[in-house]
Amino acid sequence: MNNLLNNIQEILLMGPGPSCVPDAVYQAMSQKTLGHLDPYFLQIMDGIKEQLQAVLHTHNVLTVPISGTGSAGMETCFVNLVEPGDPVLILSNGVFGTRMQDVASRLGAKVDALEFTWGAPVIVEDVKKKLAGNAYKIVAVVHAETSTGVCNPVPEIGKLLQGSDTLFLVDTVTSLGGINIEMDAWGIDALYSGSQKCLSCPPGLSPVSFSDRAVAALQQRKSKVPNWYLDLSMIIKYWEGRKRVYHHTAPINMLYALYQALFLILEEGLEHVYQRHLENHRALVAGLEALGLKMVVEPQYRLPMLNSVYVPDGVDEAAVRTALLEKYKIEIGAGLGPLSGKIWRIGLMGHTARPENVTRLLDALKRLV
Amino acid sequence: MNNLLNNIQEILLMGPGPSCVPDAVYQAMSQKTLGHLDPYFLQIMDGIKEQLQAVLHTHNVLTVPISGTGSAGMETCFVNLVEPGDPVLILSNGVFGTRMQDVASRLGAKVDALEFTWGAPVIVEDVKKKLAGNAYKIVAVVHAETSTGVCNPVPEIGKLLQGSDTLFLVDTVTSLGGINIEMDAWGIDALYSGSQKCLSCPPGLSPVSFSDRAVAALQQRKSKVPNWYLDLSMIIKYWEGRKRVYHHTAPINMLYALYQALFLILEEGLEHVYQRHLENHRALVAGLEALGLKMVVEPQYRLPMLNSVYVPDGVDEAAVRTALLEKYKIEIGAGLGPLSGKIWRIGLMGHTARPENVTRLLDALKRLV
Repeated sequence: MNNLLNNIQEILLMGPGPSCVPDAVYQAMSQKTLGHLDPYFLQIMDGIKEQLQAVLHTHNVLTVPISGTGSAGMETCFVNLVEPGDPVLILSNGVFGTRMQDVASRLGAKVDALEFTWGAPVIVEDVKKKLAGNAYKIVAVVHAETSTGVCNPVPEIGKLLQGSDTLFLVDTVTSLGGINIEMDAWGIDALYSGSQKCLSCPPGLSPVSFSDRAVAALQQRKSKVPNWYLDLSMIIKYWEGRKRVYHHTAPINMLYALYQALFLILEEGLEHVYQRHLENHRALVAGLEALGLKMVVEPQYRLPMLNSVYVPDGVDEAAVRTALLEKYKIEIGAGLGPLSGKIWRIGLMGHTARPENVTRLLDALKRLV
Repeated sequence: MNNLLNNIQEILLMGPGPSCVPDAVYQAMSQKTLGHLDPYFLQIMDGIKEQLQAVLHTHNVLTVPISGTGSAGMETCFVNLVEPGDPVLILSNGVFGTRMQDVASRLGAKVDALEFTWGAPVIVEDVKKKLAGNAYKIVAVVHAETSTGVCNPVPEIGKLLQGSDTLFLVDTVTSLGGINIEMDAWGIDALYSGSQKCLSCPPGLSPVSFSDRAVAALQQRKSKVPNWYLDLSMIIKYWEGRKRVYHHTAPINMLYALYQALFLILEEGLEHVYQRHLENHRALVAGLEALGLKMVVEPQYRLPMLNSVYVPDGVDEAAVRTALLEKYKIEIGAGLGPLSGKIWRIGLMGHTARPENVTRLLDALKRLV
């Protein structure tokens, strides 16, 4: 039999995720599997919780990696907090804001969406007006919109909600590990992320954190969470306390990988990691502009880890991506939704955010556009 | 900083899963991460589908690994097929039958449960009586009840449903890769499994397969699947067809591991794999009985891969498990629910099912009981 795994080539992952994985993370992932109730594995779980609390700047007890990819984190936050008929406001300016609306609607939420231009940020003043006279159970927003490369003003939106009963739900899939997140200081009540972006761990896990207010909302539900697998009230009994109650078998080796990925980030230091992202982003933008390419997002709203750039007139965008992949072994991303065919998305996430990668991509693009 | 991963010891995993992982699977998992839309990765996905179809003996197009552990597979099958008010019959004789009731109830199913003695199989005659005069949308059963070690008569239950409109839903988490499964011949419409039992892959994936009838039921739903992450109508567009539509980022490296695990099973040959499980099971039972221990399940209903045995009077069951783990580096499982404290569960799953492991456990137990 032909084994396809024998011919996997190393690709420089400069798309919207997954990102490049450090060797130490691959090694961690292939350590011997332990049982999910092995006392030593429980120590590793405790370590992951502490690491996540550190990178999120939170004291939340309910801080755990969910056994699924980033979208499972989105599902987790909504399914644990939404009950049928609950009013939910979603601030939307990209694919992942749109996805939130779909996720919440399926759960019976009364979804109100405030739409903003794709490629531009959420406008805080508009949110303020919308909140006046409306009582939402949840206001949700994407911190780093992976589909456009825009950073949304999460701290400012958090301020608008201070003192209200509204829960603040934030997608940090692409931001975590690449730009600062202050979960507690910004008043975030429910947050999810993904392992395969700036954490530079393979895809498969979604860190989730709930504030005490969010936990209270979960405990006060009138009905059971309509999703056994993602019910945090049960999952937390496996992740917390002296007696661990088996819920589902944790993805042991993926959790090793996450532990190692977080270990590397904390070892380098959060500030250094963010600075590295920023410097490589600046070098990339300078290089792209020197090639005559135009960025999609205004400078002050740009994400360092997700750089969206317009495809020049007359250039076949798919052909360039194919040539990059086949000839130069570099992956970049296409546009999604209304931006499909119009932009490329260049990731500088985690381990990918290094000068040699920026140079390698720019050299290749120089030959192709 | 102290890195906990530096001190992971190799444990012989003889509990109810996860099982021991072959080196080739660890190596596969630590191959370089590819993008989830990389054409080469799409080939690997096609390979996994074909491998799963082969081990399940099915032609079902909708045969995919779900991005979550075995319980996510259970959730997937129910959430895609159940609409509020649907009558569902669950045949239950252990923890996982009980879990099915909880999962289906949360989704609004009208759950009818037929309970059987834990440690004994589902009685086909009782099911036949129950079906007379009742029209269920779904009848669900666990093939290999991991909590007791009982094999349920899936083919016979399938026969009862022939010619009816009822969908047959089967949990094969512990059976897949250890005993024969004939999905098509047995009339199974929806099936889920887990990677970490007899497939000997780390936990994190749940193979799922839907028959054409189950797909038709999914397509005829009145409402959207109330779970975006597990909506098979969207997931299949990523796994099938010429143009792959991004749904969520697949757990790339876990899928490498699953590919390799299935590759090894098909290379050894299904019949040889089943025979190996059976022979090691017989050797284990003979050895346990020679030690004066008594098996929980009658011989004709025993699973080869999950051996439940009574704790002898006067023996501290937890102390024995702790000594096995700490002194002999062997993990076995405790009893669950009504069997808690009364039995041990000894796994011979996949790569674990080897004569040297049986001998090592028996030698250790000899010193402890």
